[in-house]
Amino acid sequence: MSFSFGKSFKITIFGESHGACVGVAIEGCPPGQEIDTSLIQKALDNRKPGQSIITTQRREKDKVETLSGILNGKTTGAPLVLLVRNKDVDSSFYEEIKNTPRPGHADLAAWFRYNGFHDYRGGGIFSGRMTAAFVMAGAVAKQILAEKGIKVLAHAIQIGNVRICREISNEEIEKNVYTSNVRCADLEVSGKMKEEILKVKKEGDSVGGIIECRVLGIPPGIGNPIFDSIESVLSHMIFSIPGVKGIGFGSGFDCVSMKGSEHNDPFFLKDGKIVTATNNAGGILGGISDGMPIVFRVAVKPTSSIMKLQKTVDLKRMKECKIRVRGRHDPCIAVRAVPVIEAATCIVLVDLCRDISFEDK
Amino acid sequence: MSFSFGKSFKITIFGESHGACVGVAIEGCPPGQEIDTSLIQKALDNRKPGQSIITTQRREKDKVETLSGILNGKTTGAPLVLLVRNKDVDSSFYEEIKNTPRPGHADLAAWFRYNGFHDYRGGGIFSGRMTAAFVMAGAVAKQILAEKGIKVLAHAIQIGNVRICREISNEEIEKNVYTSNVRCADLEVSGKMKEEILKVKKEGDSVGGIIECRVLGIPPGIGNPIFDSIESVLSHMIFSIPGVKGIGFGSGFDCVSMKGSEHNDPFFLKDGKIVTATNNAGGILGGISDGMPIVFRVAVKPTSSIMKLQKTVDLKRMKECKIRVRGRHDPCIAVRAVPVIEAATCIVLVDLCRDISFEDK
Amino acid sequence: MSFSFGKSFKITIFGESHGACVGVAIEGCPPGQEIDTSLIQKALDNRKPGQSIITTQRREKDKVETLSGILNGKTTGAPLVLLVRNKDVDSSFYEEIKNTPRPGHADLAAWFRYNGFHDYRGGGIFSGRMTAAFVMAGAVAKQILAEKGIKVLAHAIQIGNVRICREISNEEIEKNVYTSNVRCADLEVSGKMKEEILKVKKEGDSVGGIIECRVLGIPPGIGNPIFDSIESVLSHMIFSIPGVKGIGFGSGFDCVSMKGSEHNDPFFLKDGKIVTATNNAGGILGGISDGMPIVFRVAVKPTSSIMKLQKTVDLKRMKECKIRVRGRHDPCIAVRAVPVIEAATCIVLVDLCRDISFEDK
Amino acid sequence: MSFSFGKSFKITIFGESHGACVGVAIEGCPPGQEIDTSLIQKALDNRKPGQSIITTQRREKDKVETLSGILNGKTTGAPLVLLVRNKDVDSSFYEEIKNTPRPGHADLAAWFRYNGFHDYRGGGIFSGRMTAAFVMAGAVAKQILAEKGIKVLAHAIQIGNVRICREISNEEIEKNVYTSNVRCADLEVSGKMKEEILKVKKEGDSVGGIIECRVLGIPPGIGNPIFDSIESVLSHMIFSIPGVKGIGFGSGFDCVSMKGSEHNDPFFLKDGKIVTATNNAGGILGGISDGMPIVFRVAVKPTSSIMKLQKTVDLKRMKECKIRVRGRHDPCIAVRAVPVIEAATCIVLVDLCRDISFEDK
Repeated sequence: MSFSFGKSFKITIFGESHGACVGVAIEGCPPGQEIDTSLIQKALDNRKPGQSIITTQRREKDKVETLSGILNGKTTGAPLVLLVRNKDVDSSFYEEIKNTPRPGHADLAAWFRYNGFHDYRGGGIFSGRMTAAFVMAGAVAKQILAEKGIKVLAHAIQIGNVRICREISNEEIEKNVYTSNVRCADLEVSGKMKEEILKVKKEGDSVGGIIECRVLGIPPGIGNPIFDSIESVLSHMIFSIPGVKGIGFGSGFDCVSMKGSEHNDPFFLKDGKIVTATNNAGGILGGISDGMPIVFRVAVKPTSSIMKLQKTVDLKRMKECKIRVRGRHDPCIAVRAVPVIEAATCIVLVDLCRDISFEDK
Repeated sequence: MSFSFGKSFKITIFGESHGACVGVAIEGCPPGQEIDTSLIQKALDNRKPGQSIITTQRREKDKVETLSGILNGKTTGAPLVLLVRNKDVDSSFYEEIKNTPRPGHADLAAWFRYNGFHDYRGGGIFSGRMTAAFVMAGAVAKQILAEKGIKVLAHAIQIGNVRICREISNEEIEKNVYTSNVRCADLEVSGKMKEEILKVKKEGDSVGGIIECRVLGIPPGIGNPIFDSIESVLSHMIFSIPGVKGIGFGSGFDCVSMKGSEHNDPFFLKDGKIVTATNNAGGILGGISDGMPIVFRVAVKPTSSIMKLQKTVDLKRMKECKIRVRGRHDPCIAVRAVPVIEAATCIVLVDLCRDISFEDK
Repeated sequence: MSFSFGKSFKITIFGESHGACVGVAIEGCPPGQEIDTSLIQKALDNRKPGQSIITTQRREKDKVETLSGILNGKTTGAPLVLLVRNKDVDSSFYEEIKNTPRPGHADLAAWFRYNGFHDYRGGGIFSGRMTAAFVMAGAVAKQILAEKGIKVLAHAIQIGNVRICREISNEEIEKNVYTSNVRCADLEVSGKMKEEILKVKKEGDSVGGIIECRVLGIPPGIGNPIFDSIESVLSHMIFSIPGVKGIGFGSGFDCVSMKGSEHNDPFFLKDGKIVTATNNAGGILGGISDGMPIVFRVAVKPTSSIMKLQKTVDLKRMKECKIRVRGRHDPCIAVRAVPVIEAATCIVLVDLCRDISFEDK
Repeated sequence: MSFSFGKSFKITIFGESHGACVGVAIEGCPPGQEIDTSLIQKALDNRKPGQSIITTQRREKDKVETLSGILNGKTTGAPLVLLVRNKDVDSSFYEEIKNTPRPGHADLAAWFRYNGFHDYRGGGIFSGRMTAAFVMAGAVAKQILAEKGIKVLAHAIQIGNVRICREISNEEIEKNVYTSNVRCADLEVSGKMKEEILKVKKEGDSVGGIIECRVLGIPPGIGNPIFDSIESVLSHMIFSIPGVKGIGFGSGFDCVSMKGSEHNDPFFLKDGKIVTATNNAGGILGGISDGMPIVFRVAVKPTSSIMKLQKTVDLKRMKECKIRVRGRHDPCIAVRAVPVIEAATCIVLVDLCRDISFEDK
């Protein structure tokens, strides 16, 4: 079923952008796991709209509510159900454009898929708002990973044509990502990225970005070839996030013009452990973790919802027409994708790690 | 389980590079489906090693054998099991390097994952040879798709630094791909790619490539958000192919520096159908097909097995040492990935299309 | 994951007996399906506690709440989430017996399974109250089946030593089952069953029962051998209902002393359709529906929670001790299992029927 | 997919009664597990036809063949594929009756399910011969369980009207079951059962039976409520075996006329462990093992293939007609179901036990 993800740690997402709520049911939390709900709230706060002039002005408090699965602050082994209510809802524009699909949006495809019965208000299940569910589940997963010494870090390395050109340390990401408005660990580049976004915003336009994600502390031997390689499972999850167009692990598309002798990461010993100096493999060999950090990059497209006039078709009359998208939209969804990609990665890792239990290794 | 893929059309892969065979069990073929085994054989022939000086010299006839699931040339509804035998096996080198993982290879990671019990001979389940199973299943899937008017085309658009710079028509791909040694539809560029490969081969080195894949005739409304978007399921499958490092749908990573007004594909009417002029979406909006061709590109890394001396570690003695990989290897696995990516895509599409049966639409 | 059931029509159950709510997320409703929530409410009312002197005195209104998945009274294709709140909760007794597992109850086994972290209040996820989730999902499934002309009927055919000895028509079940306090279609036998229950209740004891379930209107050709035979999937579901100890299809255990010549149901033609006079097969041959009504019987054990003094062990001190179960319990859970078995069967049938879509046949 | 079973230990069955082979792909064997193929052969020998005058006279050597997944006698972590070839095949009778479904057989239902394209020769996938696949996988599972101290015992406790009336010890079952022609641990009753079978055989008829199965050494805390209770998963599997009509755990259908005070098994301490004197629970409370032996009984119907003349319908002409089943059939399939039920139970238990890894407990 397509609203569920995972085998040993499984999430089921529900809700709609303009319905009562957005929520998630999480199965497979180990019983007795301490859950700090303030950390879930903090993660939601990092994703939440209306935080600065470069994000949508929809105002949602996004207070997390727990429906089941916790007793005395600890998981019971039963599904943990979390949700946030939708409060600041204005569906008027969507009633207007019900029959005129927005270019670059899911409208047309959804209309075919659900025979016209999908919830079109605010994008329904295709809204970026659904990612609140990823973030809640990710905040739970993060706490499970933390106990195993595993950490996931993400930040924006490129927004439009502005990109980071130097090496960024893990410490920088950890320290800066959520103080930067654009979720970029280099605070200088961060400023330029913000300008880039404000420029396109003024034009009634939007811009894309690249997010880099790193997983630290992952033990070697995680991943299940042939079909549940780490890349397979991670990419499956990441492409479930709205707006993602590409993913590359380690060297990614740069591998193409490299020679094998450049691309192979030679092994050596460091403190009795086998490591590599370079990490073109992105921490993954044969679909399995090799003990180095897992590294991947994600391309996020420019927001489809722009104020410029665009060509479309009226589905009822089957006639060409024009549309100008109103509503409250982010000029660069890549920025708000950062905590979502981080959360999504945490979810996948708990699932992969539980599949072959840590103790087994 | 990680050796199976699919929901309605499910494959389970078995076998090893130097074991008795490589095979696949296919569940979910509609009963009564005519299967032309000569087409399976032809697909295997297109993938098979030893075809030219730029592929491995391992000689395998790869004659397809049917174990079950067919009666009088038609599927019965029971699992269709197909296999090819391994004949030209030489495991001597692998006995030698059992404890010295090859850089860029699965050896080390597999050793951790399977506690040292994996079949290391010829790369075991990590061998490119396993892709024969993808090809057999893909050739079955292709016949099912053909009846629905769906066609999958793939070809190499870049090898090392040589890339195609012009638009290639679907007809060109169909006509040229398997006459080109390097599986590139532009026969002129094809020649330069071959030179590129021969050059690195002479150096005892290897090179990567980019494969483009197109799906024609896919009806709108296929794909299952949130988690089984077309991109999610396709990328899951594609990253199961050895050597894949990146994937991009439609505009892929190029989307990043585009503005929303450039990236959105405007809708218009053509012969009563809703179409787009550009295809930055790659035929997919909100994870669902929009009726345009599905297009994606895959980055394949340079072959890890190179003749040059490389640094590694002896796992038994935990000492650094050097290794020179012998054996029969392709200098550019991207070339042989073409029929595999094509096959893998066919498998995914049958699964996605059956999930919401064609008739339902 | 063990809180989910189904492939094409999938339910995920959440909540606890003494937590905030009991709910269910339903995936796979065909988009555009009209859902009458008053029918869901009616089904809940049929299951609800406190209805007569032979059921528990816990008072719950069990008003159904919809969290997502419906727009204008029709399903959207997104998960349909339904829940009832827990209002009349008294956990005091459960704090007392936290360490003294009740004989015949899940307490001890749950303690082992969840390392002592399960929600023990009111039986937690093992409470009969969880069946409200089955009933809500079943009421949705029932509406989908109704459109296909499929109907599910269940009633009690034995309570303790009182059993129905004559043939009961489908019409009788439909008419009488929910007017009978004990959910038995024969209103005379019904009275005797009630007496049987009141007798054991007075003794502080409990009694078991047999529920018969019939599925009418099921087309031939439903069911997925080898492993998803109708019996396999139905029994899987039915044994998820608390208190079920046995199931038999058609002749059930009576088949043992029959000869093949008696047991085989001969085929003949009636109005151009192939039918059988007897139905020892219970409408299922080779795991597939044969067009006759599906019939099965379910044995439900006597309620474990009895007022009599029983021997148990104090888990903390590891000492033998005695327990007298307080709380509000049904003297015969078989009675309240009737709408649950009906609901559970509806859920399974929608799943099985969608798996091979009706249109495919 | 319906030819696969299991989550952590998954089997996929393939082949047909009169095709090339019957086989099984097993995923999820822990890497490094020693597999003694002579034990697989021994299990096949116990199931194999043609062993005595009360079984079918089809002669099959059923020599096990290994296609993949083992290196140096140990599992590698890749799918273990095992098969037996079909040698003694005579399909002539099945060509004759292609259009006249045998009463009590899958013929008619299969015809609907597979639109007439199923392999009808020798019953195809509905043949008892498919259980050779269960037995091979079970023999692997048994070796995994043996290392954990878990043992599965099954034997016939009733054949037709002959039933065992005394308590049978585990030791008796272990010692006698495969020396008894009818797979009954009481050798005296065994003789009477044989007579019962020979009597009906002489009449050209058949008879049913009850098989009891016990699981010894199962740790408490195994089983995954709500939906993957031990009863749910076991019954799902057991009803996949041809001819099964009913199952009861512990007291089974006898629970109905018992009072709670009789049915509840009181806890007491024995050698520091919590045990029960009676075992009405059948070792399962709330769907989870409680540490006592798991006990269940299975009703197997009389063989459908009988020599007596029976009424049926000609599907081509849609006319009533008569059929006399020829071919080589067992007069009592319950007898040969014993090793199959044993095998099937082993498969389920490995899956359930691995799901929450032993180490976790």
